[in-house]
Amino acid sequence: MIVVSGIQPTGRFHWGNYFGAIKQYVELQDQADASYYFIANLHALTTVRDPEVLRRNTIDAAIDLLALGINPDRATLFVQSDVPEVTQLCWLLMTCTPMGLLERCHAYKDKKAKGLPADAGLFTYPVLMAADILAYDADTVPVGEDQIQHIEVCRDIAGSFNHLYGEVFVMPRAKIMEKAARVPGTDGEKMSKSYNNTIGIFDDPKVVRKTIMRIVTDSRPIHEPKDPETDHLFQLYSLFVGEKEREAMAARYRAGGFGYGEVKQALADAAEKYFAEAREYRKELEAKPQFVREVLGDGAAMARKKAAEVLARAQAACGIKYA
Amino acid sequence: MIVVSGIQPTGRFHWGNYFGAIKQYVELQDQADASYYFIANLHALTTVRDPEVLRRNTIDAAIDLLALGINPDRATLFVQSDVPEVTQLCWLLMTCTPMGLLERCHAYKDKKAKGLPADAGLFTYPVLMAADILAYDADTVPVGEDQIQHIEVCRDIAGSFNHLYGEVFVMPRAKIMEKAARVPGTDGEKMSKSYNNTIGIFDDPKVVRKTIMRIVTDSRPIHEPKDPETDHLFQLYSLFVGEKEREAMAARYRAGGFGYGEVKQALADAAEKYFAEAREYRKELEAKPQFVREVLGDGAAMARKKAAEVLARAQAACGIKYA
Repeated sequence: MIVVSGIQPTGRFHWGNYFGAIKQYVELQDQADASYYFIANLHALTTVRDPEVLRRNTIDAAIDLLALGINPDRATLFVQSDVPEVTQLCWLLMTCTPMGLLERCHAYKDKKAKGLPADAGLFTYPVLMAADILAYDADTVPVGEDQIQHIEVCRDIAGSFNHLYGEVFVMPRAKIMEKAARVPGTDGEKMSKSYNNTIGIFDDPKVVRKTIMRIVTDSRPIHEPKDPETDHLFQLYSLFVGEKEREAMAARYRAGGFGYGEVKQALADAAEKYFAEAREYRKELEAKPQFVREVLGDGAAMARKKAAEVLARAQAACGIKYA
Repeated sequence: MIVVSGIQPTGRFHWGNYFGAIKQYVELQDQADASYYFIANLHALTTVRDPEVLRRNTIDAAIDLLALGINPDRATLFVQSDVPEVTQLCWLLMTCTPMGLLERCHAYKDKKAKGLPADAGLFTYPVLMAADILAYDADTVPVGEDQIQHIEVCRDIAGSFNHLYGEVFVMPRAKIMEKAARVPGTDGEKMSKSYNNTIGIFDDPKVVRKTIMRIVTDSRPIHEPKDPETDHLFQLYSLFVGEKEREAMAARYRAGGFGYGEVKQALADAAEKYFAEAREYRKELEAKPQFVREVLGDGAAMARKKAAEVLARAQAACGIKYA
């Protein structure tokens, strides 16, 4: 199993990023024969227009991922733009991508439907994403339910190239992260930067606690029993605790006679404990920028080695390699 | 003056390519401070789908250009795909290219208007073309009248990037090749592969002569005087001869009393003589594939040096360079 996944450095990572993706990355790095995790700064460029912010986000993403358990001895961690082979491959794929395929992609379609001006980066990002995946002969792409389309588009593009030029690319498969929780945000909707309802993994614990205290809850009185399964506070709490504590809290919900404030405090305690080690390690990493740069440098070198091999295969197949 | 221009290896070069572009390249290499001429194999990939043909065309294009007078000591001659910095730059530009700009471009618009399926390569090729130009800080792009739109699009894209991130790119200007003849094909229309009316520069002189003899002419009788200025045979003849011979032929047109067959023979003689030296040199070059590869290797190294500098500037400006 060769795993690849990218994460956009559009801001500091939040609980949704962790339980929806990063946690699975960490698990997969031990199960896979090879895993490639990249910080997708070329994709982020379509939305982050402040160079200082993008730079800072990119470095922060690397530190965050290392702190959260990506192990450079097991996984290849790198920054997307450090592998030029990916944009080279992107152009080869572009010439095999029917316009209709891109016109049907959600991100572009949604923006167009809203009458918003789109740029070619947004329109063609599925082609770059296909290059990101195909460059490493990856067969497995961990994704959430909402990203299945991307993998289908990648398979369509790879299929179109293979049909024209022979079996060049490995066909990747989406690995739906079943265990990846749908993490609710502070408003109960899916946690997402675009909804402005996130809780940062590495925010100061006091800030996190304050944010948690502001989570919207219903107004049922204290004495009333509540169904834990439909409550987003309970869903969040469940992410951070073991089965035993989860059951204990569920029992309290069903019994009634408690306020949401108590659950919020319990959640804040659990979250603080859960990320305590990562927070400590993050501090260490922040003091070692040279080490982080070396990890990214080594990762890029590893990734380029593989990507160069795949690119050469594609270039030879379509006649771009001429001598 | 920094000049850049690319020529697609979609087939063997014909008279239209020579008088419409290559002849000017040769003149400009002496006038410019630097000139970058590349064989646009990444663009050709949108139409040439046979890898063997594309490979052969790419090598042939290099040999043809050298034989016709591109001097590697004065100009930088290279193959587009040997400069990865161009596709890297292409993505950065993609994120700054409004969709509307590309939707208005002729090649895509025409294909769409005909109801033909287009691929993303055709749609986004103006962005790659912009990268081709901007990567070398070129200020001058020799083009025919019909290609002015490309340079305008390139300026729009560069302007959009510069507006967002500061003065990164040199604004290129189209240099309309006034002297570049509108070369008529065998049917009197503009000579173009797509009209199937071309005469190959390096076709065997006997084949060229046969092709010339088949050029369509009007059916006015021998004795009648003719206007040389409106005659495409005369236009073709004028390309190959000096002022004196041109005037002599014009006088014969006006006097009447001759057949088009005579003009055709004169044209075939003139063309054979005109390209004789290039034909000889081409034979030499064909026997030295290693030399041609070296020229292209050196050219790519020179081009990459400049392109890497421009790319680094662009990456720093938009925050893609993070460390």
